[in-house]
Amino acid sequence: MSILFWLDYIGTMVFAMSGVLTAAEKRFDLFGVMFIGVVTAIGGGTTRDLLLGITPVTWLSTPIYLYLILAGVLVAMLFRNVLASLRRTLFLFDTIGIGVFTIIGLEKALNLGVHPGVAVLMGVTSAVVGGVIRDTLTNEVPLIFQREIYATACIAGALVYLLLRHLGLDPALNQLFTAGV
Amino acid sequence: MSILFWLDYIGTMVFAMSGVLTAAEKRFDLFGVMFIGVVTAIGGGTTRDLLLGITPVTWLSTPIYLYLILAGVLVAMLFRNVLASLRRTLFLFDTIGIGVFTIIGLEKALNLGVHPGVAVLMGVTSAVVGGVIRDTLTNEVPLIFQREIYATACIAGALVYLLLRHLGLDPALNQLFTAGV
Amino acid sequence: MSILFWLDYIGTMVFAMSGVLTAAEKRFDLFGVMFIGVVTAIGGGTTRDLLLGITPVTWLSTPIYLYLILAGVLVAMLFRNVLASLRRTLFLFDTIGIGVFTIIGLEKALNLGVHPGVAVLMGVTSAVVGGVIRDTLTNEVPLIFQREIYATACIAGALVYLLLRHLGLDPALNQLFTAGV
Repeated sequence: MSILFWLDYIGTMVFAMSGVLTAAEKRFDLFGVMFIGVVTAIGGGTTRDLLLGITPVTWLSTPIYLYLILAGVLVAMLFRNVLASLRRTLFLFDTIGIGVFTIIGLEKALNLGVHPGVAVLMGVTSAVVGGVIRDTLTNEVPLIFQREIYATACIAGALVYLLLRHLGLDPALNQLFTAGV
Repeated sequence: MSILFWLDYIGTMVFAMSGVLTAAEKRFDLFGVMFIGVVTAIGGGTTRDLLLGITPVTWLSTPIYLYLILAGVLVAMLFRNVLASLRRTLFLFDTIGIGVFTIIGLEKALNLGVHPGVAVLMGVTSAVVGGVIRDTLTNEVPLIFQREIYATACIAGALVYLLLRHLGLDPALNQLFTAGV
Repeated sequence: MSILFWLDYIGTMVFAMSGVLTAAEKRFDLFGVMFIGVVTAIGGGTTRDLLLGITPVTWLSTPIYLYLILAGVLVAMLFRNVLASLRRTLFLFDTIGIGVFTIIGLEKALNLGVHPGVAVLMGVTSAVVGGVIRDTLTNEVPLIFQREIYATACIAGALVYLLLRHLGLDPALNQLFTAGV
């Protein structure tokens, strides 16, 4: 489980950073930048938890997420120019974040015993809703609805993971493999 | 109750189709089109369930909704051109969907024993929130805020239904009558 | 507690009025104007309750909020022109509303025993999410992300309140003082 934990932490920070960068580009004030950073990072997992009836939602009872988000927001605000030139690398992390969040959502849902189709939907929700909220609040059409590859990877990841799980693969290996895909 | 069930299923499919058509017009990618279809179909009922504290939300524990939505999405994607020329008929179904969802939301809320004013609000929520999310995510001002008749019908339906229920009318008849209004 | 109660009621009405004025400016139909009024008034508290797992959400079980919102909506629709010339005074009430909602959200969260950082976030959520939804649904970039002072006041209020609470100040005095800030 430990690889997934670390990837989850990294994914949360990267999502917070992507929110900050988007809001800063739109010249939001300090509060706006922080708000968008937080919402991007927690939006997907929060929506998933609410739909599944897990309340209070995960990050409310696990303060480490708040610290990670705060760290992500601060780093992004301080090193905005550096990050702008690292766009390609960030995009890679973003994609990893989406893959990881998909798996986490999927696992949470399966552990609650829901229908596999619903579980895939919960995985996708975890992964994309944060970005969708970010883009909606900054008055853009959500990025994920326009870039084929992005979301396809997310769904493909979910299906692969589900298949491997079904075949009884060791979970840790499975997680690593799916994130790779 | 069975008429309402069938109308609910039809309403869910029609809502999914309206989401697909809107997203396709905006040239969203495959994932975007499916996402908007799903969200339009479940947005209203989900919001209602969350507000009333019904979790996991209905469609999570009742997979038939997922199949209906999937069917609606596929049909809408395959027969997009045909449907475009059937706009008027679809609009009729859409209105029926709104009426049906209003009644269902109203009933669910009343069965939980809430204030009648709140119940009307829950009916309206079930009926319109899916479309509001659809329009917001495609960066439009929600349609329902601009077409007088649409929403008025929805509220009128709720009030008529409430009145008839108060008078002790047979529920099945009542539902049919209200959907007609 | 009674001062806070009254301020809460006033805040709810003012928020409903601000929603009505914004929607009316956008030439929404009657339903749209009412819908935006309601959502602006309850959006923040509802989101807070959902995240904390308080369901059914507060206003569902406390009909007085509905009456207040209805009153706010009616007043705003009837006296739209007068209110337009009172913008400055309204802005003052709006700021008071934000301060009050921040404190209420903070208190609710602290009473549930969450981490203080999370509690501050819940305070901010209560105060700003209603306005964010209002602006998103009217297809605007949320006001609060663009006006520095606004949100800073809200966060400052939360921190001051938390500090004073920690020092063991009498709650009533504390609430009055923070609202003043």
